[in-house]
Amino acid sequence: MTIQIGRGKAARRAYGIDEIALVPGARTIDPAITDTAWGLGDLRLEIPIIASAMDGVVDVTTAGRLSQLGALGVLNLEGIQTRYADPQPILDKIASVGNEDFVPLMQQLYSEPIQPELIRQRIQEIRSLGGIAAVSATPARALQFGRLAAEAGAHLFFVQATVVSTDYLGAPDLPTLDLAQFCQDMPIPVVLGNCVTYDVTHKLMAAGAAAVLVGIGPGAACTSRGVLGVGVPQATAVADCAAARDDYFQETGRYVPVIADGGLVTGGDICKCIACGADAVMIGSPLARAQEAPGRGYHWGMATPSPVLPRGTRIRVGTTGTLEQILRGPAQLDDGTHNLLGALKTSMGTLGARTLREMQQVEVVIAPSLLTEGKVYQKAQRLGMGK
Amino acid sequence: MTIQIGRGKAARRAYGIDEIALVPGARTIDPAITDTAWGLGDLRLEIPIIASAMDGVVDVTTAGRLSQLGALGVLNLEGIQTRYADPQPILDKIASVGNEDFVPLMQQLYSEPIQPELIRQRIQEIRSLGGIAAVSATPARALQFGRLAAEAGAHLFFVQATVVSTDYLGAPDLPTLDLAQFCQDMPIPVVLGNCVTYDVTHKLMAAGAAAVLVGIGPGAACTSRGVLGVGVPQATAVADCAAARDDYFQETGRYVPVIADGGLVTGGDICKCIACGADAVMIGSPLARAQEAPGRGYHWGMATPSPVLPRGTRIRVGTTGTLEQILRGPAQLDDGTHNLLGALKTSMGTLGARTLREMQQVEVVIAPSLLTEGKVYQKAQRLGMGK
Amino acid sequence: MTIQIGRGKAARRAYGIDEIALVPGARTIDPAITDTAWGLGDLRLEIPIIASAMDGVVDVTTAGRLSQLGALGVLNLEGIQTRYADPQPILDKIASVGNEDFVPLMQQLYSEPIQPELIRQRIQEIRSLGGIAAVSATPARALQFGRLAAEAGAHLFFVQATVVSTDYLGAPDLPTLDLAQFCQDMPIPVVLGNCVTYDVTHKLMAAGAAAVLVGIGPGAACTSRGVLGVGVPQATAVADCAAARDDYFQETGRYVPVIADGGLVTGGDICKCIACGADAVMIGSPLARAQEAPGRGYHWGMATPSPVLPRGTRIRVGTTGTLEQILRGPAQLDDGTHNLLGALKTSMGTLGARTLREMQQVEVVIAPSLLTEGKVYQKAQRLGMGK
Amino acid sequence: MTIQIGRGKAARRAYGIDEIALVPGARTIDPAITDTAWGLGDLRLEIPIIASAMDGVVDVTTAGRLSQLGALGVLNLEGIQTRYADPQPILDKIASVGNEDFVPLMQQLYSEPIQPELIRQRIQEIRSLGGIAAVSATPARALQFGRLAAEAGAHLFFVQATVVSTDYLGAPDLPTLDLAQFCQDMPIPVVLGNCVTYDVTHKLMAAGAAAVLVGIGPGAACTSRGVLGVGVPQATAVADCAAARDDYFQETGRYVPVIADGGLVTGGDICKCIACGADAVMIGSPLARAQEAPGRGYHWGMATPSPVLPRGTRIRVGTTGTLEQILRGPAQLDDGTHNLLGALKTSMGTLGARTLREMQQVEVVIAPSLLTEGKVYQKAQRLGMGK
Repeated sequence: MTIQIGRGKAARRAYGIDEIALVPGARTIDPAITDTAWGLGDLRLEIPIIASAMDGVVDVTTAGRLSQLGALGVLNLEGIQTRYADPQPILDKIASVGNEDFVPLMQQLYSEPIQPELIRQRIQEIRSLGGIAAVSATPARALQFGRLAAEAGAHLFFVQATVVSTDYLGAPDLPTLDLAQFCQDMPIPVVLGNCVTYDVTHKLMAAGAAAVLVGIGPGAACTSRGVLGVGVPQATAVADCAAARDDYFQETGRYVPVIADGGLVTGGDICKCIACGADAVMIGSPLARAQEAPGRGYHWGMATPSPVLPRGTRIRVGTTGTLEQILRGPAQLDDGTHNLLGALKTSMGTLGARTLREMQQVEVVIAPSLLTEGKVYQKAQRLGMGK
Repeated sequence: MTIQIGRGKAARRAYGIDEIALVPGARTIDPAITDTAWGLGDLRLEIPIIASAMDGVVDVTTAGRLSQLGALGVLNLEGIQTRYADPQPILDKIASVGNEDFVPLMQQLYSEPIQPELIRQRIQEIRSLGGIAAVSATPARALQFGRLAAEAGAHLFFVQATVVSTDYLGAPDLPTLDLAQFCQDMPIPVVLGNCVTYDVTHKLMAAGAAAVLVGIGPGAACTSRGVLGVGVPQATAVADCAAARDDYFQETGRYVPVIADGGLVTGGDICKCIACGADAVMIGSPLARAQEAPGRGYHWGMATPSPVLPRGTRIRVGTTGTLEQILRGPAQLDDGTHNLLGALKTSMGTLGARTLREMQQVEVVIAPSLLTEGKVYQKAQRLGMGK
Repeated sequence: MTIQIGRGKAARRAYGIDEIALVPGARTIDPAITDTAWGLGDLRLEIPIIASAMDGVVDVTTAGRLSQLGALGVLNLEGIQTRYADPQPILDKIASVGNEDFVPLMQQLYSEPIQPELIRQRIQEIRSLGGIAAVSATPARALQFGRLAAEAGAHLFFVQATVVSTDYLGAPDLPTLDLAQFCQDMPIPVVLGNCVTYDVTHKLMAAGAAAVLVGIGPGAACTSRGVLGVGVPQATAVADCAAARDDYFQETGRYVPVIADGGLVTGGDICKCIACGADAVMIGSPLARAQEAPGRGYHWGMATPSPVLPRGTRIRVGTTGTLEQILRGPAQLDDGTHNLLGALKTSMGTLGARTLREMQQVEVVIAPSLLTEGKVYQKAQRLGMGK
Repeated sequence: MTIQIGRGKAARRAYGIDEIALVPGARTIDPAITDTAWGLGDLRLEIPIIASAMDGVVDVTTAGRLSQLGALGVLNLEGIQTRYADPQPILDKIASVGNEDFVPLMQQLYSEPIQPELIRQRIQEIRSLGGIAAVSATPARALQFGRLAAEAGAHLFFVQATVVSTDYLGAPDLPTLDLAQFCQDMPIPVVLGNCVTYDVTHKLMAAGAAAVLVGIGPGAACTSRGVLGVGVPQATAVADCAAARDDYFQETGRYVPVIADGGLVTGGDICKCIACGADAVMIGSPLARAQEAPGRGYHWGMATPSPVLPRGTRIRVGTTGTLEQILRGPAQLDDGTHNLLGALKTSMGTLGARTLREMQQVEVVIAPSLLTEGKVYQKAQRLGMGK
């Protein structure tokens, strides 16, 4: 439904994850017999959760651990891990700086050059832990690092930027990355993103993407909407891009998963993204709260170090449990941030969905969790403030 | 009206109790001549309020007291009362633990086995107080405890889970509860829930339910929406399920009451649920504030003790008066949490409804009590902050 | 437009004053030449503002002062002023009690019987100050006090309750007030209210009301919505009732003013009510902030003293200036609570409305002043919190 | 779409900047090759940002500096700068007074008469710094100061009031400004505003405006909506007025820029205004945070000094960087308030818009950034409150 903002401008209403909820139907299922497996390239993974390529979330150790647990972590090839042979003191420094000095520190730390030999080394370290070596670069660096990563044994390559498109208009004197050519040339599957529309999703799939990342603006450590005004609420973005995936599959017979990325905090958020059509999710802040996380209780966006326009932010997320507790439980918190797999399986059982494909079909209602007066009252109660 | 969340997903807008208000019509009535009575099985009750089967709300004493006052309390057969011969020190411990240790404590306390002889004893204790013995179990335990409870003299049996359906797909090697068979076999009326849709309500009634509990997600001590993404705002859920009740009555001549359960805090909330079509309400936190409540000023959800995925939470509700004050007044608080029966009768008078059936027909408007700037200003005034 | 809350219930969307704003048109006018006069019975008043019949707002002195300023104050015949020969120590006590003891104190103070001779005395005191003697009673007391007040020289009589209707169903053994008969019998104009619908407004006008009060639920000191679930947002209520007034005028040639009552805090709120169709407004809390106000910086609802179901509340409003500053300026505050007449005239000038009748026709937009993230940011800035 | 507020009143839904977001399309562009230039009269300016004619934002020094940076500042001819030969001690006083004494102080300071020779002097001072001398007056003073300013060498003259229209009805004995005559008589371009509707925009353009200012009510230091009830959310106002500009251009061949004024805080807000159709924006509070700003970390509205109805307010905005950092970066803050030009260019690149005209065409979605429960959670995390 098109809405007229004013005489000169029409718009669509888009919905966020906070605005929807899932409706149990006529059937329920024992969570134990639900199946959460999904495929990415040739890999078959038990948990449809990917750890974001962010320096506070994934390093070599967590990448290995995530693979053992049935999930996946992506190492950022343009972050701390490939600029410093020993990232530990750098991460200590980031965790100890005050809020006012954070942006300048990040700008300084990330001005250190990336060392190609460290790219190779990190990939091999992940592999030596038995992990899936998934790594990411921005479009500007993809050509340079892509081949290097593949040769070093990477299993998956992510080309990721705030916004990616197949039609990029660069400065006349600079080379431009041809995504289709890149996917074709790379010997390993390439995941592309982020995007938020049907058309771009379809084009990225046609360019050869092994999966498409969906989500612009909603992340906890992302301030794109404030800085750039850009963003599409995640429920609508996922539903649109999932429609492109289904049409592309109808047209070509190739099923390219859609990965919802950004702004997901709880198990409920993950369930709702899949119900909108996602095949998997990419999450940052919930995993930055793990004991194993390199961020030491902090989480920050990849756009933060920009020397001219920093637009991530650092948030204190705290440390609440192990990666295993967060992904597979048992939960020690009752707020939906522990045992994400258990929450997904319980939700699927409640909703009568045996597989993720069935979960994509469950009924959704628009039900804003707005801060009504009643909610504030309940919140006050939860915080122990009585009346 | 169907709304397109995105190309691949349509949804309905659902409404919560906080989003509606009741409209006085052309007639008003003296509250003294309104009639709030309703029937459940063979019982006729003066107050359409049931105390939730939660350990912080109902024990033997409160069940007896609620019956005396014209209401009803349901004893949870899988909680503290049937695991411990003397529940008092256990309840003391729950009330004295800190927030961070609460979930592990609950997981430990509820791992104690349920003692069948305590089920029998509690039911007899309630009866010896002259109370209505209403007890509840989850579907997994219903077969085992149902017959036992009936033999011990229970008047009503509740089979209650977050979500209940007649079509349950369990693991192949485990027995599954056939709800229709169970209702038929039980010598006492069986109440089933919770559900949120027309179809499931209709099926539960057809299976023989004596009443159906409606509500998933909205409770103060329930975090299903955060953990599982599941939930339907209560005004819509009640209206849908009440329509199923009316159709079922048209088809069969049997009138099966619909009980709204979850998220109701004030007299106004109760009035609004009935105006949406409910015959009665089930409430937890408002009664947990009674001096007689076993929770000692605390309230927690039944899903909290889950060893793998705890998803209730404990809230500090405080103690504000006796059960009698809360249900029948006189009120000492002006915020709608005392004298719930008086509020209902006054609301019915204001709206010109002589009976609950008439109250189900009053006019409703959608009028979100959102936190607008003006409201914040008013709130600040109420809190004594002046400008 | 009818919205389906659920299968069994349809509703209309109603709008509050906080959800609308006024749109300047093609013409602007010098505020100095706008005309705010309106008529009530035979009176012609310069300022379309009436002080609520609340004990914290109107006593003899303020009633006199309001008349001098071109406005009007209504004395509550069932409050402190007619129960106590010397109300000053009583008002001191109300202002000095703590929040927890407030409701019981009110219940005790208002159990003192009303003295008919004090009714007579207060009316004469107002007249001796040269003031318009407007007084109010509830329907139950109207017969008894109406004639008494008229004989004592009252100019206007208000019959006011939370909800008033011409069709009241009382207990069989109690006499019922016939509003039409009462209006006919009374030698002075009778104002009736409150109501919120087209039909009831029309019926009250047909019963002989000199004006109709519109508004249920929205007041700052009113908790009807929380306690009873009852209320209609004020913009919709006023627009509906104003339509009844216009139709009644078409049918009969008698123009009966509609007075918006409840929830109005700022000059902007008053402007918006008139733009929705009101002829005047009744306000409580903004005038309770006057130095002359009997509430000494406090404000409370008339339903508070109810012995069984208190549902007003006491709010601390503070004291910010004289009645003259609040009504006619000059303003010392920039938040819209001083110089309400000046605000109305400036708004009328901005909107090109020369008279209140023209002001009722200005363009309105639905523009929720929701607490968006941006708003919170701005608020924080205003509160001097910087970023 | 027209919505019925009530039987007697229809309204349109209007949208604010906080309710929309921008959608990346199929093309992306290197920000370095985007072009943000725009024209105003004969001037061609690199940055489509104008500093508001407010005493806390623009003085001689900042006007000069803004011109050097590619932007523009407007000097208020009726403020501190033209009433006091040495404004520094006056500005010190404003910055040091407490909140309760602020309004009376402003009323006193602005009662000092405006000195015509200071108007001349300030314009020459700006010119001597190489700056563009843009100055503003209210309609009441425009005739008197307009010619004076033009003779003194001003480049641009702004006639600005809360609301301006070509059809002004004044008191019979006072002369009225004929805007069309004024524009014709003035030897320099005249900018007119503010307005919010298609019709008034079209009329102001037809009257000869060199640009039209759009926005009533939304400013951070503006309380028009609270005091007067007047205001139109900015996204709708800009879209409507931009449609008038396009129609006027079709009819006459003259392109008159539309400048969005009020309520814009971040780079994202600016991007969104342009996407709704604006050619440029006027901002106050973001520039009041500059080290060079005359407000010394404070910002206040132009209507504040009104002797009878003050309706701006003073807000503490703090000081966060130089004008250059705020306009051109590099940014030291990651919240969208530094490097506004960089944000605009990056947003244009992300959205595939090469010029401002293309930026006016990008896709918009309605995506309220409401304070949902999830958002509050994220906020709490950002503030370092963990869970």
